[in-house]
Amino acid sequence: MTRQIDLNADMGESFGPWPMGADAALLKIITSANIACGFHAGDPDVMAQAMAQAVENGVGIGAHPGLPDLQGFGRRRMQIAPTEARNLVAYQLGAAQAMARAAGGQVRHLKLHGALANMAAEDEALARACYEGALAVDPDIILVVITGTKQDTAARGLGARMANEIFADRAYSEDGLLMDRRLPGAVIHNADAVCARILAMLEARALITAQGTHLPVQIDTICLHGDTQETVKLAYSLRMALESAGMTLCQFKGARPA
Amino acid sequence: MTRQIDLNADMGESFGPWPMGADAALLKIITSANIACGFHAGDPDVMAQAMAQAVENGVGIGAHPGLPDLQGFGRRRMQIAPTEARNLVAYQLGAAQAMARAAGGQVRHLKLHGALANMAAEDEALARACYEGALAVDPDIILVVITGTKQDTAARGLGARMANEIFADRAYSEDGLLMDRRLPGAVIHNADAVCARILAMLEARALITAQGTHLPVQIDTICLHGDTQETVKLAYSLRMALESAGMTLCQFKGARPA
Amino acid sequence: MTRQIDLNADMGESFGPWPMGADAALLKIITSANIACGFHAGDPDVMAQAMAQAVENGVGIGAHPGLPDLQGFGRRRMQIAPTEARNLVAYQLGAAQAMARAAGGQVRHLKLHGALANMAAEDEALARACYEGALAVDPDIILVVITGTKQDTAARGLGARMANEIFADRAYSEDGLLMDRRLPGAVIHNADAVCARILAMLEARALITAQGTHLPVQIDTICLHGDTQETVKLAYSLRMALESAGMTLCQFKGARPA
Amino acid sequence: MTRQIDLNADMGESFGPWPMGADAALLKIITSANIACGFHAGDPDVMAQAMAQAVENGVGIGAHPGLPDLQGFGRRRMQIAPTEARNLVAYQLGAAQAMARAAGGQVRHLKLHGALANMAAEDEALARACYEGALAVDPDIILVVITGTKQDTAARGLGARMANEIFADRAYSEDGLLMDRRLPGAVIHNADAVCARILAMLEARALITAQGTHLPVQIDTICLHGDTQETVKLAYSLRMALESAGMTLCQFKGARPA
Repeated sequence: MTRQIDLNADMGESFGPWPMGADAALLKIITSANIACGFHAGDPDVMAQAMAQAVENGVGIGAHPGLPDLQGFGRRRMQIAPTEARNLVAYQLGAAQAMARAAGGQVRHLKLHGALANMAAEDEALARACYEGALAVDPDIILVVITGTKQDTAARGLGARMANEIFADRAYSEDGLLMDRRLPGAVIHNADAVCARILAMLEARALITAQGTHLPVQIDTICLHGDTQETVKLAYSLRMALESAGMTLCQFKGARPA
Repeated sequence: MTRQIDLNADMGESFGPWPMGADAALLKIITSANIACGFHAGDPDVMAQAMAQAVENGVGIGAHPGLPDLQGFGRRRMQIAPTEARNLVAYQLGAAQAMARAAGGQVRHLKLHGALANMAAEDEALARACYEGALAVDPDIILVVITGTKQDTAARGLGARMANEIFADRAYSEDGLLMDRRLPGAVIHNADAVCARILAMLEARALITAQGTHLPVQIDTICLHGDTQETVKLAYSLRMALESAGMTLCQFKGARPA
Repeated sequence: MTRQIDLNADMGESFGPWPMGADAALLKIITSANIACGFHAGDPDVMAQAMAQAVENGVGIGAHPGLPDLQGFGRRRMQIAPTEARNLVAYQLGAAQAMARAAGGQVRHLKLHGALANMAAEDEALARACYEGALAVDPDIILVVITGTKQDTAARGLGARMANEIFADRAYSEDGLLMDRRLPGAVIHNADAVCARILAMLEARALITAQGTHLPVQIDTICLHGDTQETVKLAYSLRMALESAGMTLCQFKGARPA
Repeated sequence: MTRQIDLNADMGESFGPWPMGADAALLKIITSANIACGFHAGDPDVMAQAMAQAVENGVGIGAHPGLPDLQGFGRRRMQIAPTEARNLVAYQLGAAQAMARAAGGQVRHLKLHGALANMAAEDEALARACYEGALAVDPDIILVVITGTKQDTAARGLGARMANEIFADRAYSEDGLLMDRRLPGAVIHNADAVCARILAMLEARALITAQGTHLPVQIDTICLHGDTQETVKLAYSLRMALESAGMTLCQFKGARPA
């Protein structure tokens, strides 16, 4: 039986007259799409189109809720109370569910965006509030979490269906967290290097840190960042490398924690 | 078998730090609540509270989508293309469904708000687009339409579950439309007069115009406007009058057109 | 003494993470820039950059206020009362003045954007309200108006400093208004054709309609639409053609009506 | 020669259909108004009205810029870069200047709102960025700072015209900062107590902490919080008490640091 792996990327990040991203090209490569829900990016028309494209390509649909900060693209941290977090995740998930349904699809996963994701990776109470908001709307939704963070802990604590993600092009520190972007080597630009390390991590069933330490983790999906044509090429290379290594690319199953 | 009738009113029209409306008091009186969805009023936190209150009071929950114009409270007409209308209704309905579900309830009806409602009352293509957006999300949703308008025609044409509404305190012209607010007698302030005419219309199963003409219509629900304490008193008087006349106040059934 | 003419184009239409336009290239060619003010496009950071670039290139700075509709890019008509129009123009002009001043420049003209401009071109009361809002903030501001429309009438009636504009690439009807974009020939794509007709109009001091009729008008500035690289090329060709014809490109003077 | 003192309060915090505050009543009592600029509260119409009322009452007009967070009323901290802070303060100041001018007045001071004020009180670089944004627009603007905080340090460092404020109804800790609201005694509700302590502080030319320690500070203006009828009564009592003590209530002068 072949090993299965999922590739996910953010989609639907245009807004009004402003396009963003290479959605059409990426949807030919990835297996799960995280679709912006109108708070940090996306609007009802953009979402309708992104949902239709995802359905057409058979790509798994995810809600990608963010902070209510369009100008900042949801990347500026905001002091959000747990109740507010719960409600803004529920609201955005509902909007995504409706747009998916209207396009003949359905939302199967949820992944937090930007600063909300970063805060939830560090703050279990916030992560829990976000995920409770999602689960109150759909108890069977699959939570895509950053492996080894408070997101992971919170989702596990809630007994939710989960998918653990690692990043294709980001180096890991010894503590299993992403290296600070500003440090040399934190972002891996070479496609061959990206492919080699991802294959090694999947083989090892572990994060491999910049120093080479193996930290055993669950790996269900690989996150492809960025929205440039380079991203598309990297995504394509990675998909080819995974398939050449005998893996099957398909949507994560979203098992509940044991 | 007693005659059944529904009373509906708008709810959840606060935003952030700004309260609006007498929700708690009205929820003791009405049977269906139209809850703002964050575009013309309401935000995820306000919606969460309104949904919880509606559930607690056993009041039927409706989505009340409006134009994306918070400053104008959705009352300024905007040039919206049918596709945009479809998507903004679907988006807002989905958000409302999620917030209802998170509060242990569910959205059973949808009623358009403000300028979007007024435009849809005059423009069948726009009404149809709005309702298609709603039905694509939930084919069993009940569309609350203003009796005798293009809203009515569009919903009927789609074979949707429907509830026809009349207004408690607004006089009707000979064409069955609301009299212009600026004309004398267009708004009826006296509670006794409101009760008497509503009872007469229900008895006659017809709109009764300012000139006394009877225009036969379906009447499923009575709309209570306004958010003042006076509205609460009027609502209470009307409920008492209806019950004294032997009617049962309960949520509309939402039959499909014959 | 050589004939003087101005070239104007819209600028600063990015928003948050979403770029738009070829500002840097156009600023080397045009003499007046209409800078978005944060309602239909632009944000404080985008404005700061656009102002700095305009100052650096010695280009005349204009405020380009629009309707409060970011998703619709200010292109969807909204039902705006004259008082609202007055206030939203004043607000946006003030914001632009501040950002210009902080960049070492100053706002010298104002041009309405999108649907607000179109509505004001047809509705003198609305145009007047917009311009009164601008003049209440700066009585010496130059109003860039579409020649021959209600914008023109309103600005003239207020005795304001004015600059009359024609469009580089749009055909005119016999009534002196722009031909409907959907009609064949309404948009002129060929750069040579654009240059030839503009030179002819400047020579004739008249609009020349699609049928060849001459309608005498004041022409102070030529509007370059669009934000593509093609626009940049067209702008460059037009500038070359005007200079070759012996004209001087410089900011309009903004004389008051005689 | 009598001692002069200023009373300031926030104004113009309504938005669209949602009223807030007791502006009309407070404007009869205070000498300086901090008017919201449309980011955390206020809109162009609300601002136009607030400016007109301030002009009519001869009250000093201030811009009161906040974070771009309407739902959170600018009270949720956001991760704002210094350049962003600079630009959003400049933008809002410009808008306020325009609305003041259109109402026949002018902005003479600037005071930061909510979370932006709190962050600037702790972070000198952020305070400096905000104030540089203001001074780039108007080098003579008076910066109202919270005495003894990084706001104070930053404004002083810029050599700006300043007014130092203390809070009417908030207790001070030994470090000269406001006591945490959640501690007992942090908010003083009794009008007599408020008046007595303010008089004592003015007499002592010092903050008087909850423990009675005197911390010498410059005091130019007293901030009245809140928007309830109780606030109006408190404001009135304080004004009476100050006048009975022989002080003159008038707008602060805004001297530059020595």
